[in-house]
Order: sequence, then C-alpha cells, then structure tokens
Amino acid sequence: MTPLAPLFLLLQAPAAPTTAPPPAHEPASQDWRDIPANELLVMRLAGDRTVVIRLAAALAPAHVANIRRLAAAGWWNGESVYRVQENWVAQWGDATEKKPLPRGVAASVTPEFEIAAFAPAQRMTRADTHSATAGITADGWPVASDGQGHAWLTHCYSMVGVARDEAPTSGSGAELFTPIGQSARRLDRNYAVVGRVISGMEHLSALPRGPAPMGVLPEAATRMRIVSVTLGSAMSPAERPRFQYRAADNPRFAALIRRRENPPAPTIGSGGADVCEVPLEVRRAP
Amino acid sequence: MTPLAPLFLLLQAPAAPTTAPPPAHEPASQDWRDIPANELLVMRLAGDRTVVIRLAAALAPAHVANIRRLAAAGWWNGESVYRVQENWVAQWGDATEKKPLPRGVAASVTPEFEIAAFAPAQRMTRADTHSATAGITADGWPVASDGQGHAWLTHCYSMVGVARDEAPTSGSGAELFTPIGQSARRLDRNYAVVGRVISGMEHLSALPRGPAPMGVLPEAATRMRIVSVTLGSAMSPAERPRFQYRAADNPRFAALIRRRENPPAPTIGSGGADVCEVPLEVRRAP
Repeated sequence: MTPLAPLFLLLQAPAAPTTAPPPAHEPASQDWRDIPANELLVMRLAGDRTVVIRLAAALAPAHVANIRRLAAAGWWNGESVYRVQENWVAQWGDATEKKPLPRGVAASVTPEFEIAAFAPAQRMTRADTHSATAGITADGWPVASDGQGHAWLTHCYSMVGVARDEAPTSGSGAELFTPIGQSARRLDRNYAVVGRVISGMEHLSALPRGPAPMGVLPEAATRMRIVSVTLGSAMSPAERPRFQYRAADNPRFAALIRRRENPPAPTIGSGGADVCEVPLEVRRAP
Repeated sequence: MTPLAPLFLLLQAPAAPTTAPPPAHEPASQDWRDIPANELLVMRLAGDRTVVIRLAAALAPAHVANIRRLAAAGWWNGESVYRVQENWVAQWGDATEKKPLPRGVAASVTPEFEIAAFAPAQRMTRADTHSATAGITADGWPVASDGQGHAWLTHCYSMVGVARDEAPTSGSGAELFTPIGQSARRLDRNYAVVGRVISGMEHLSALPRGPAPMGVLPEAATRMRIVSVTLGSAMSPAERPRFQYRAADNPRFAALIRRRENPPAPTIGSGGADVCEVPLEVRRAP
C-alpha cells in the first residue's frame, strides 16, 4: 500500500478550479504578516544547519531583551546543544556553566512565567487544557488561561523556554530549551517561554540523544556545536532570513482550528484537539 | 547555571532513609508484571540498534495475529524505515509497496480502530481529551472514550499504529508507524493501534527527517535499514529480551496520575495532564 499520510492530509481537497472559492481554512494573502528582523534569532549549527527562532518580544520582554544582548555579545558562539533527552527537550548554551554573562545582561530576570492577559484572537472551542481554556493570539502564539486571572504561553513542541535554577528569577535566557517529544503541560507557568523554532526544528529534534536519565551529553565531541547566534536585525539585509507568520484574527484561522478539532469525514472526531495541535504557520517572505 | 532538568525532576525527593515509606507514586515490587515473549516484537536496525515493541495483543488481536505471522515469515527483514516526518511519524515496512504478503497473512483486516469497552483501572480525573474521558488500563495501555459507547487506544508518542490505504480494512500490519513529535488526537479511531515502543525509541525519533511535506525518503541509501523483526518467543531464551510493565490497578499508580495532573509545589498546576503524559513504565526483567 502507499506509504500513508495520516488521513487528514490524504483527504485535503484536490486543487480547486479557478472559479471555486478556496477552502475556508486556507490563508488569504493578507493573512501573512512580516516578522520583524529583531524578532528573529538565527542559530547556526555545525554542518551548515540553520535554526530560526521567532522571539515572543511582546509577551516575554525582559527575557527577550536579555537574549538580544546575549546575541549581540556573541555569547552563544562556540557553545553547544549539550542536552538532548528522548521525549523531552533539547537544551543549549554554555555546557561548562562557568562563562560569565556579558556586561549588560541581567543574571536575574523577572520570571515572566505568565502573560498579562488572556486575549486570544481565537479560542479552542473545547475545554482544552483541562481546567484551563486555550487559544491563539492574533499574531500566532498559543496561550492558555485558568479563568482565574492567570494566563500563559504554552510549552508546545518547538516552543523555546528558558532554563533556570530553582530560583524563579535565575533564568537569564542564556540557556534555552525546546520540547522535542510529547509536550507537557507541567512546564507551563514554571518556565518562561520566549519564542518558537520556526525553521530548522529537525536540526534539534533529530539530534542523537544523550544518556538517560536527563540526556546531558558529557563529552564535548558528542555535542552539536553552535557556530553563532545572531539577531536577524544584526545581519545584512541580504543575509537575514525573512519570514512571515499567519495572522489568527480572521475567519480563516477560526476554520483552521475547527477543522483541527473536528477533522472532516471520514475521519472520526475523537474529542477535539490540544492547543499544541493548532498549526502555527510561517513561511519565507516572498 | 546547572543544565536544568524540568523542575519536576529536580524536586524528586532525595533517597529516603530506610525507615521512611517510599513516595506514594513509586511502584511496589509486586507492581511489575512480565510481558509475555510473544507480545514483544524485536526490531533490529542497522548499526546494532534494537527497538522493542510491546504488542497490544488483547486489544488489537487481528492485527497482532497478522504481525506475528509477518514476523515469523521474516517479512520485514531487509526492509526499511522509509518515512520520517518532522513532528509527526516515523513509518516502516516495504518502501516499494510491491512485495506480496506471505501466505497466511491477511491483506484485509477488520479495522480494530476501537476497543470493546472503556475499562481503565485508572481514570484521568480531569476531562482529558475534551469531550472524551481517558485512563490507563490495568496492564498499562492509554485509552479514551467518548462516553457514548466508543473506546479506543490513543496514538500517544511512541505508540505503534497501522498504516493503511483509504479502505478501513486495508491495514494488514505490514506497515507500521509511531508518532515522533506532538501526538495528535485526530489519529485516534482512524488507525489501529497495535502496540508501543518500550525500548530504543530514540533509534526512530532521532532519525534524519525526510523531505517535506510527508518525510518520505526517496533514496534507499538514506533509509534506516531493518535487519530483522522477530517475535520474542521465536528467539532462544538466552537471546530474547525480557521486559516487565508496571501494573496500573493499584493506589500507587493512582498517585502517579494525580502527581502528573497536579505536580507538587513549587510547580504551579497548569491544568492537568493529557493521557499521553502519563508515564507507562517498563523495565528489563530482573
């Protein structure tokens, strides 16, 4: 039999004739918005592998400010992805833990485990994270709320979080991680979320795993080396990657969510979708 | 700072003195049960990598019967992992789709997308899959139900599903897949679940991804080769791996689930846990 795409993909409508309207969930041209160059963190790994992270500048401003200073100081250059834990996270930064932070980079940052308000453009229609409700912001971030005044970004697969010690303020942004397996809701509200890997995620998710239990790679030679991490705005216009996100504050995105929560027949609805299952599309700017 | 384990791991209690009771969620010695040798599928990949799959023999009997016949016929020997799609699945079998099935292996199998009844030993206390309820069976399988007579195994990360064509009966079990990223509830009730990877998952999850959109690897040289797939009971007693699962029908497993749904302080409860977040522990038989 044919190597089978999950049924959802197989049953996408064939290319429509030019006079038919596009499927309700597909983006319109005006739905694509530029991601500012200073919200793109470009991580080059050994072997000409590039990972691009979109920074949640408005939702985690203190950490993103620190991250921008770290990038400007070239802090990650020569560092490594020192931890790859199966069905958990890839984590990168200074494996020796000895390097002093550059001047101007705060060692202690306000926790930013939550965001100011739960104001998504689209809500998941089913109670998604259990006692929490969830949705997608107008500019394409996954958020949840407990309905009692707390709201937060969710640590979905490929979201970028801030590693820290026990003190809630101890995450400077110098060490970052991303879930590479089943995303776990117990990370939410415990670690700051600063962004999302929007390109090159496979360069992290397919790394050889470190040994159990925590996947920390003890030998420098086994760690994927970071060549450089640079803010897009610090690169020349010719060099910097240009990406757009898909805006969520429109009926097409609403249809996308409904479709994910209730896949069309013959797929059998099996109880909705997690906020982390909503595709947050980006594309190279045309 | 120290490469940080997620807080939950860091805050595990230190080794208890001999007179203190063990934490309520830890297994007792009697909680470990042998997995029968004919419920272990041992897949050897090139480079001396071994993947062990526990077969859900009672919950998908028709497919498991076919899979046992396929293994006995050496059907997968020399085949490959021909599809690795980022944040979706790894899939393996006959990439050419031309090899005839062995005698005695049914090309058409009753769908087995659902199980006979929703009878978990432990339920998730929070509405987990939205309109569905979820739990873990006594022998450690993740299940869900819509409360209207339908019950099914959930396609969590590392669960093994049956690839098929459009006809619901077209999945013989000759082509299998496992989620290697965010698990998606829209697979549930659409593809049969036949088991779970209990050892060596990293040999699948860390494979280089195939090209977008579906991750199918076009070149034979780029596909991870399957040396052999053998049922544990067909191996000599000295060779066969021996594994045990952790039984769920006891208060210790109940405590494990509650702990996952409500991680202990200072972790902030963020709304429960998905059924796919419940650890389904196995160990090498002592």
